[in-house]
Amino acid sequence: MQFRTPNIAAARAFALGALVAFSVSALAQTDPLPSWNEGAAKQAIVAFVKDTTTQGSPKFVPPAERIATFDNDGTLWAEQPMYVQGLFALDRVKTLAPQHPEWKTQEPFASLLKGDLAGALAGGDKAMLEIVMATHAGMTTDDFQKIVKDWIATARNPVTKRPVLEMVYQPMVELLAYLRAHGYKTFIVSGGGIEFMRPWAEQVYGVPPEQVIGSSIKTKYEMRDGQSVLMRLPELNFIDDKVGKPVGINQHIGRRPIAAFGNSDGDQQMLEYATSGSGKRFAMLVLHDDAKREFAYGPANGLPDSKVGTFTPALYDEAKQRGWIVISMQKDWKRVFPDGH
Amino acid sequence: MQFRTPNIAAARAFALGALVAFSVSALAQTDPLPSWNEGAAKQAIVAFVKDTTTQGSPKFVPPAERIATFDNDGTLWAEQPMYVQGLFALDRVKTLAPQHPEWKTQEPFASLLKGDLAGALAGGDKAMLEIVMATHAGMTTDDFQKIVKDWIATARNPVTKRPVLEMVYQPMVELLAYLRAHGYKTFIVSGGGIEFMRPWAEQVYGVPPEQVIGSSIKTKYEMRDGQSVLMRLPELNFIDDKVGKPVGINQHIGRRPIAAFGNSDGDQQMLEYATSGSGKRFAMLVLHDDAKREFAYGPANGLPDSKVGTFTPALYDEAKQRGWIVISMQKDWKRVFPDGH
Repeated sequence: MQFRTPNIAAARAFALGALVAFSVSALAQTDPLPSWNEGAAKQAIVAFVKDTTTQGSPKFVPPAERIATFDNDGTLWAEQPMYVQGLFALDRVKTLAPQHPEWKTQEPFASLLKGDLAGALAGGDKAMLEIVMATHAGMTTDDFQKIVKDWIATARNPVTKRPVLEMVYQPMVELLAYLRAHGYKTFIVSGGGIEFMRPWAEQVYGVPPEQVIGSSIKTKYEMRDGQSVLMRLPELNFIDDKVGKPVGINQHIGRRPIAAFGNSDGDQQMLEYATSGSGKRFAMLVLHDDAKREFAYGPANGLPDSKVGTFTPALYDEAKQRGWIVISMQKDWKRVFPDGH
Repeated sequence: MQFRTPNIAAARAFALGALVAFSVSALAQTDPLPSWNEGAAKQAIVAFVKDTTTQGSPKFVPPAERIATFDNDGTLWAEQPMYVQGLFALDRVKTLAPQHPEWKTQEPFASLLKGDLAGALAGGDKAMLEIVMATHAGMTTDDFQKIVKDWIATARNPVTKRPVLEMVYQPMVELLAYLRAHGYKTFIVSGGGIEFMRPWAEQVYGVPPEQVIGSSIKTKYEMRDGQSVLMRLPELNFIDDKVGKPVGINQHIGRRPIAAFGNSDGDQQMLEYATSGSGKRFAMLVLHDDAKREFAYGPANGLPDSKVGTFTPALYDEAKQRGWIVISMQKDWKRVFPDGH
């Protein structure tokens, strides 16, 4: 990852990364998971890592096979009131509108530009896809990387008004670092766009671009003025969600993970995939039940389906039946965000 | 990678891997590239690594950006008289024939089973695709991994009669290790099947499955007896060749390599991609001009096109123009294979 256009916002993102890295490192001497309350969830994590990494343990796993996969939205950072990538797409529509006078009368753009999000999304998946293609395609991969990097450095959550990069979950950042400190290779496996996450995932989560898996659009090789580039095309390539997650994992990693972390029905098959197979296995789901510090939502909480990170009672039942850990943000996390919120 | 079905052949593959690893390590003290003759190619490699990894050098590259990509067939191991994966497909047809009585009269299988390879391949790409699908699909990814592992442990080159795993290029194995010892992450980027290479690439080249990129067929998530599996479908997913190589690199790695190694027109775009961009860049093509120790073939040598690993004069010219190194197996390699041949 190259931050070759330093600005104040980027510096801020750097400082945040350094802060997270420092606090993790300073606390590692005493407790590698200081933002986790003592309890069954924390105990299960520590026991799993000890069992799989202690030489001579009957459950010992060689370093090469220590693969852990993490969903992103709702598992590593906040996904309410809408996916951060959705915010990006909306902002891009506004930025690009002057170059697209036809959008004034053309849905879903017309409603969006009037601020009528519900109206814009009334067109369902087709409308969403049109917005994604209009905002994510038509430039080189290098240019898109820069657009994302610049945008995310200043983007804020529309409800909390706090920077989206400060709404990553500190307990999960600690968990990622804890696993890596024990020889695990950590991967992100998200329904979100692979190229949307890569520009900042290394700084924020310590996960390099080659360990980020996500949905993608097609790209096309072109030679421009003797320099080779990849153009982003308005055509879906891969949906890394639900049954797509194991497919994406196999495509990118080529090994079955032994630990997986998610928060919604979109993660069900990834957790099934990681926990099928011999040896010790671990799966965890984050339940969003903390209205005070974050958001409480979803059917598994007995709340209406917000259509973002849906966690159904059926998945909750499967988790109990298969021995997956369901963690309560309210009870299991001492703090939620890096700045102590 | 898990070798959970040990047998003599697998043990042999292990021993070979250990031998390569040992010889590389024992010689590293004196010369990290002992199988390379002194000359411009070796000097260029050493200078590139020194320039990019010496702190304070104007061409210094941070470890995270030290990405090197290698073609496989003809770059890391022998590809004549046909790709090893082609041998695998032919053997699989013979193995599966009893379950497919219809193949006795159905092309391209009928010709194949009579030993008439030319007749079988007269159907062109369509015939080849049919053979690939019949032999590579219809099982789980786990089962396919075992099939490949068992096959490759005993497979032999039809011309030399030597094990295919002993026909990897020792100078390139040393180069992979040399780059890794200097903080480079080494990736294989092959037109061959991603799942065909992964079961043995770590043992033979030190490249783990998650750093192997290749062509693929589609897979489908299924739950069988409470265990989740991926079924391999008879449907192309991605061709990782020519313009597909930069696309595959971007999809899997998400960073532009700074060094790339190939041997044919299929690698042209990968080398262009790796050498476009700022900072120090390195590209190398292997010219097969050693009829005595390996094979001499291809238009760049003024020889007929064998259709395997075609290296055209046009690519040779581009290499010279762009400053890529073209190495002569005959002149630049002190030995070709690990056993000293």
